[in-house]
Amino acid sequence: MIIVLKPGTSEQDIQQVADAVKKFNYEPRLIRGVERTIVACVGNERSHHTLESLIVLPQVESVTPIQKKYKLVSREYQARDTVLDVAGCKIGGDTFHVIAGPCSVENEAQTLETAKAVKSYGATLFRGGAFKPRTSPYDFQGLGRDGLALLQQARAATGLPIVTEVMSPQDVEMVAACADILQIGARNAQNVPLLAAAAASGKTILLKRGVSGLIDEWLLAAEYICVHGNSKVILCERGIRTFETYTRNTMDISAIPVVKKLSHLPMVADPSHGTGRRDKVAPMARAAVAAGADALLIEVHPDPDRALSDGAQSLRPEQFEELMAQLRMIAPAVGRTI
Amino acid sequence: MIIVLKPGTSEQDIQQVADAVKKFNYEPRLIRGVERTIVACVGNERSHHTLESLIVLPQVESVTPIQKKYKLVSREYQARDTVLDVAGCKIGGDTFHVIAGPCSVENEAQTLETAKAVKSYGATLFRGGAFKPRTSPYDFQGLGRDGLALLQQARAATGLPIVTEVMSPQDVEMVAACADILQIGARNAQNVPLLAAAAASGKTILLKRGVSGLIDEWLLAAEYICVHGNSKVILCERGIRTFETYTRNTMDISAIPVVKKLSHLPMVADPSHGTGRRDKVAPMARAAVAAGADALLIEVHPDPDRALSDGAQSLRPEQFEELMAQLRMIAPAVGRTI
Amino acid sequence: MIIVLKPGTSEQDIQQVADAVKKFNYEPRLIRGVERTIVACVGNERSHHTLESLIVLPQVESVTPIQKKYKLVSREYQARDTVLDVAGCKIGGDTFHVIAGPCSVENEAQTLETAKAVKSYGATLFRGGAFKPRTSPYDFQGLGRDGLALLQQARAATGLPIVTEVMSPQDVEMVAACADILQIGARNAQNVPLLAAAAASGKTILLKRGVSGLIDEWLLAAEYICVHGNSKVILCERGIRTFETYTRNTMDISAIPVVKKLSHLPMVADPSHGTGRRDKVAPMARAAVAAGADALLIEVHPDPDRALSDGAQSLRPEQFEELMAQLRMIAPAVGRTI
Amino acid sequence: MIIVLKPGTSEQDIQQVADAVKKFNYEPRLIRGVERTIVACVGNERSHHTLESLIVLPQVESVTPIQKKYKLVSREYQARDTVLDVAGCKIGGDTFHVIAGPCSVENEAQTLETAKAVKSYGATLFRGGAFKPRTSPYDFQGLGRDGLALLQQARAATGLPIVTEVMSPQDVEMVAACADILQIGARNAQNVPLLAAAAASGKTILLKRGVSGLIDEWLLAAEYICVHGNSKVILCERGIRTFETYTRNTMDISAIPVVKKLSHLPMVADPSHGTGRRDKVAPMARAAVAAGADALLIEVHPDPDRALSDGAQSLRPEQFEELMAQLRMIAPAVGRTI
Repeated sequence: MIIVLKPGTSEQDIQQVADAVKKFNYEPRLIRGVERTIVACVGNERSHHTLESLIVLPQVESVTPIQKKYKLVSREYQARDTVLDVAGCKIGGDTFHVIAGPCSVENEAQTLETAKAVKSYGATLFRGGAFKPRTSPYDFQGLGRDGLALLQQARAATGLPIVTEVMSPQDVEMVAACADILQIGARNAQNVPLLAAAAASGKTILLKRGVSGLIDEWLLAAEYICVHGNSKVILCERGIRTFETYTRNTMDISAIPVVKKLSHLPMVADPSHGTGRRDKVAPMARAAVAAGADALLIEVHPDPDRALSDGAQSLRPEQFEELMAQLRMIAPAVGRTI
Repeated sequence: MIIVLKPGTSEQDIQQVADAVKKFNYEPRLIRGVERTIVACVGNERSHHTLESLIVLPQVESVTPIQKKYKLVSREYQARDTVLDVAGCKIGGDTFHVIAGPCSVENEAQTLETAKAVKSYGATLFRGGAFKPRTSPYDFQGLGRDGLALLQQARAATGLPIVTEVMSPQDVEMVAACADILQIGARNAQNVPLLAAAAASGKTILLKRGVSGLIDEWLLAAEYICVHGNSKVILCERGIRTFETYTRNTMDISAIPVVKKLSHLPMVADPSHGTGRRDKVAPMARAAVAAGADALLIEVHPDPDRALSDGAQSLRPEQFEELMAQLRMIAPAVGRTI
Repeated sequence: MIIVLKPGTSEQDIQQVADAVKKFNYEPRLIRGVERTIVACVGNERSHHTLESLIVLPQVESVTPIQKKYKLVSREYQARDTVLDVAGCKIGGDTFHVIAGPCSVENEAQTLETAKAVKSYGATLFRGGAFKPRTSPYDFQGLGRDGLALLQQARAATGLPIVTEVMSPQDVEMVAACADILQIGARNAQNVPLLAAAAASGKTILLKRGVSGLIDEWLLAAEYICVHGNSKVILCERGIRTFETYTRNTMDISAIPVVKKLSHLPMVADPSHGTGRRDKVAPMARAAVAAGADALLIEVHPDPDRALSDGAQSLRPEQFEELMAQLRMIAPAVGRTI
Repeated sequence: MIIVLKPGTSEQDIQQVADAVKKFNYEPRLIRGVERTIVACVGNERSHHTLESLIVLPQVESVTPIQKKYKLVSREYQARDTVLDVAGCKIGGDTFHVIAGPCSVENEAQTLETAKAVKSYGATLFRGGAFKPRTSPYDFQGLGRDGLALLQQARAATGLPIVTEVMSPQDVEMVAACADILQIGARNAQNVPLLAAAAASGKTILLKRGVSGLIDEWLLAAEYICVHGNSKVILCERGIRTFETYTRNTMDISAIPVVKKLSHLPMVADPSHGTGRRDKVAPMARAAVAAGADALLIEVHPDPDRALSDGAQSLRPEQFEELMAQLRMIAPAVGRTI
């Protein structure tokens, strides 16, 4: 922690701050500058009590933490990239992976048709929602348990590993029995009991960034999973909320290189939720690959206009095929193959 | 829904949209304007499928929903203000209420001392956290079940009704056994299983706005509680995330008159979380009363520098006393008594 | 500047940073912490070159400025409140001032009728736009020079000092000949040549916060005026851009206590632009007074539906009268009279 | 305009709205829906008075404009892409252009060295600031007129066309005498007198998006230039302000496909200002190309640590070379050559 004192602070008031710092078991070091004295506080900020409440002392101008709160997810803790093996798909390595499928699984025909189509065009994992967190209670909430059965059929038919969302700690066991990757959605990005329960399943977790999640909050949510003994986490950028409304969210493509530098975990980008508009999915998917993502999460639906959720952002199978061809051209520029 | 077509759309393309609209069981009405034709779609938007996916048709410029998704929480459903009786405190009526107490209950002495102090200065309900959702897994997570016991002691000692947070569906029953009002925090503002479980308890729910929650999302979260049969909901403004970092959040004071016009539910303001800074709590508490809030949620701690959470935003008891005196001067300007 | 080095940085790499710091004429002081070494750099950050470019060294984790860039506007430079005398109105003192009038002056009748009405209800300054910065080139751009003549008539008729906007350096002389206070709008909040020209006029400047202006940027814009020899600046909070669209902007009421603590300059709040909705103006005007503003800027129009600009946010004269009565009840709670 | 009335509005109140609409010379058409009546108002919204002030009628729920305010810049006005010829560089066509150079020109050696380096690696235009809009009055404000002379030397030495910023209407003539493209910066994105003066120069204008500029505001700023008789406008995405602070701005890559669909004007992306961090420039430059930009604006400095402005975001010449090689691999995926 760095405590900056106001100009003209008296010796006595400087000492008061130093004493307060010692009470919290940090060691204060005074640096007397041109206008201001600063107090550098030596001690482990992760395990010690925060000094931020000292901001309310009249002589204190600012209190700035130095140490990042997250540890297990950081590059300092593990310099090399984490590569996760999900039923044979090595996510985070040289091969770029595309996870594709409908927003919600709706029935057997739609599920199987989509799974077979995306596999034929190059997707290596299948996504589909059975439990859907919806903003309105009047919207389709997913098929639930029946949806999980359809996902199992899709895996049986195609061999593709399954990615699906879990919304409640009570459902983790049931969903984990069917899924290869448990998705935690943006609305649950700081749902601590859910993070803990999902971690305990031992499954790989795909953790979306919160609706307006700071990168530090996102990494700390991943840290919650790691401290519960499960370090198989994939981080998913899915757009943040800004003032611009032409797109449903503003996809923060720069978060990809930022997080890849801070953390060893693999990163996936979700341009479907990131834009909310079918015709923006391909440009943003290309951008995500070019910026260094490890994988993509793409919504595909055989008849998007009739989709029970998020049809406006779902690609038709033939659009997905075209996108895959473009991605194959871009990947080598960032040292990847698809 | 209003569908705006692009200028120069052919009759055939107009008809295509009209046909699509009919397939979704809306009745299309064409309005031919100066440059554009618009298609007004008559039908219940709450129960019908959304037409928003039509945005992807090349001749469609925009699709705008007309009907609000929420119903039970709206002024249209109930014109008069809801007044909730919580152990004799009538929240939403002519009397302004102040809910005060520490961020976390830490031990018996701190809990009882704070409860007695805030009661003596005019608080009518007591708040204190036992289950704490924290951004970092390394921060104090609350006393849990032991904290609930302390809250019961505080009620026994002062008679003040208790407000405390619940974080997980599994804990609802246990927390509801102790609390008069269940708080759902900003991080869980769209945690659907938790909203449903809390609703089922039959308790009054204090529902915080999400970290970057749209007003419509907030009202729909309240609608989730209502559709589960519990209309005892208090809405809590606690600041939104913006680019400005001088305060922890930016308190959206204008949300108070906005929501009071849209909804019949009572509104409480939380200037402690809304600002994150002790010296900003009093000005924002005064502002919230002047803008028409029904109640305040204020953090008070006998020794804020040593608080185990959020000390920087907690008032000392004597500061709380001074604030109450100011609030008593402002309340009559908005037709209230404290 | 505080430079935080990554854990495990070698002595040689630490020395490289220290040497770089010396090249920029700062004195490096090393503090060796538990995990990290930090380099505190002693030197005047306002006059020295920034060290922020050192962030790109591989061993550097963060570079944090310590010293605020603004000086003349700060409380450290002048502890007492600035009180500005504008034609006898003492802005920033114990008396609360209300500046009222139409968004644009449109014709003689509208101008004089409004000026007389707002004076009769207690406004002490008159506002009206002659040069209007509009988002669309197809919207009414103001009467220009003819509008200035109308403003002079309003002053002659009522004795109220005049506040009006200037948009271009070339117009400063002309506008200053007519106005008592030059307003610089949100769109020009960082228009450096305009800030300089306005400062040179010697008039009091009402400086609005930028559309998404950081508080630091706003204070630095005021600093530009001060370094050009004019310290007669009033800061005006007028709402910031956020994701919420129920109001035109989100009024940052907390900026009032924040800026009053950082700076000695008077602060005015503009709830008309801050909300964009007539029925939200009164609640936010009351909130601004309660939070400690020194003055208000309120749009009033005798026939708002026919206003040539911003009619939706203009009060009718009788609504302004009612608001003034409420403000007179609140002001004493913050030690003011109206 | 679409006016939505509240449920249960009486015939008399419906008629009041219809009459108000007629007074503004729109033709009202009533559509009676399930819960609500809506009034579709037929008339040219660009030339007629806005109806938005009707929102304050008690029976009105919302007023929604239908027509976009911009016209000349829209795809509807001109379907084909605008291709601008700047001293032989065809911007907006099949060839991708890279504009590179230092943030500020500082001296002859730095200017010429950079210009020659970027040309040798493939840049086709040279950028450099002579007039610098800085947030702080204590920061380097550019060399002004001397800087323009250096830019002319760079053009003489390399043949590259020059892009440089103009900040004040008075300077337009002087800057236009030296520059091939006049840049209007983010802080002046809505500086109407400057837009008009720059348009009058007849030069190509590179118009940056405002610091928190809506896409509609940006297109309307371009429209201001067009209505002043100059349609040679290049739009420049340079990042928007969000809550995330790991990057200086959040680059809105999705604005590229959004604006390319709405407007026929060419688009350039500025990853240097968009990120503020040298190591994020290359990933975001690659992403912008992949998303469909027509050109890039890249800061390059031979000794970034000693740059007088924005050194932290400037590439070294060898980094620029490496980036160009990557871009050449990506361009074909979007049908471009570099």
